[in-house]
Amino acid sequence: MNNLSVSAEIAAFVAERDWAQFHSPENLAKSIAIEAGELLECFQWNADANDARVREELADVLTYCLMLADRIGADPNQIILDKLAVTRQKYPVEKARGSSAKYDAL
Amino acid sequence: MNNLSVSAEIAAFVAERDWAQFHSPENLAKSIAIEAGELLECFQWNADANDARVREELADVLTYCLMLADRIGADPNQIILDKLAVTRQKYPVEKARGSSAKYDAL
Amino acid sequence: MNNLSVSAEIAAFVAERDWAQFHSPENLAKSIAIEAGELLECFQWNADANDARVREELADVLTYCLMLADRIGADPNQIILDKLAVTRQKYPVEKARGSSAKYDAL
Amino acid sequence: MNNLSVSAEIAAFVAERDWAQFHSPENLAKSIAIEAGELLECFQWNADANDARVREELADVLTYCLMLADRIGADPNQIILDKLAVTRQKYPVEKARGSSAKYDAL
Repeated sequence: MNNLSVSAEIAAFVAERDWAQFHSPENLAKSIAIEAGELLECFQWNADANDARVREELADVLTYCLMLADRIGADPNQIILDKLAVTRQKYPVEKARGSSAKYDAL
Repeated sequence: MNNLSVSAEIAAFVAERDWAQFHSPENLAKSIAIEAGELLECFQWNADANDARVREELADVLTYCLMLADRIGADPNQIILDKLAVTRQKYPVEKARGSSAKYDAL
Repeated sequence: MNNLSVSAEIAAFVAERDWAQFHSPENLAKSIAIEAGELLECFQWNADANDARVREELADVLTYCLMLADRIGADPNQIILDKLAVTRQKYPVEKARGSSAKYDAL
Repeated sequence: MNNLSVSAEIAAFVAERDWAQFHSPENLAKSIAIEAGELLECFQWNADANDARVREELADVLTYCLMLADRIGADPNQIILDKLAVTRQKYPVEKARGSSAKYDAL
């Protein structure tokens, strides 16, 4: 399966419900933050989360991310690769290896 | 391009830096919430966001989402489709059409 | 020191900059989520956070919370106590003692 | 009413339930982000939020903020004022007046 068919499924789901009217980039960015909070709630008091719940909440974050990508005309795979190229520069292997420090503290 | 090659690129990026040790599901869930906050910052005071910045921040959220999916052995496309099936039931077209109400208020 | 003088200081800070025009409840709710993400970033990869940075980020969350309380005409102390009364009912001591379970799983 | 009695009420609520064991700074930071997401949900699709719900969710964010302040030995009012002094420098009235731009773009 590739992203194309998933994005098409999501688009059909939205179109059937006439929900595009609510999906401004701003509202989708809020929705991503809201769902990210629900995903984090799986880990609120300890690291031991319910696997099924994590999958559902992660799916919600991903779904709103794909909706936002679609709304702003971005290819999700391409923006990931573009950003990865930037991050590779910011965190060169020889400096970043085995460290969780931020780039300005490497 | 499909997700497979993107996930492989991300995995290589992480392996080169020996960062898997930091990528517990809990830390990745925190990272998704942190990046979702940065994406939201693009829309903090108005709906008019800088397109390039939105793409970068959205890419960061997506990247951590794919890292978490990989870490828990979930296929990102599959969990999206699984959740979409659940949401279709919760929001039947005839009730949800044109409404932004929550399912328990439809 | 009591909240009154702090709220007055915040109000003066905002008035001097003519920033009330940006402080709709919605924008303040976004701002709280954004700053909560920055606070969380102090703990992104481990539990060992820089104390000075935690204080600054916590102050940012609190400041936007007080701005929102002011904007909607709520007394911050009163809404905390009101909610505490609700939570006491939801988590009775005899059931909740020593447990981090959610009320519907107690 | 001042913060002292509210903080004392919160501390009693926690002690009765023996919950201090769960309240590491990291877990409280996660909790603040989770509750900030629930507050944001009041404004997910439009600016028109239910006032009672906003008050409850704002109270939850504030409560966890006061718990974190208590846990790290910080006076909430003092850290707000300390940060306000920093922000006054970053956003001088003559440059920041009437602008929502970030300090590095003023």
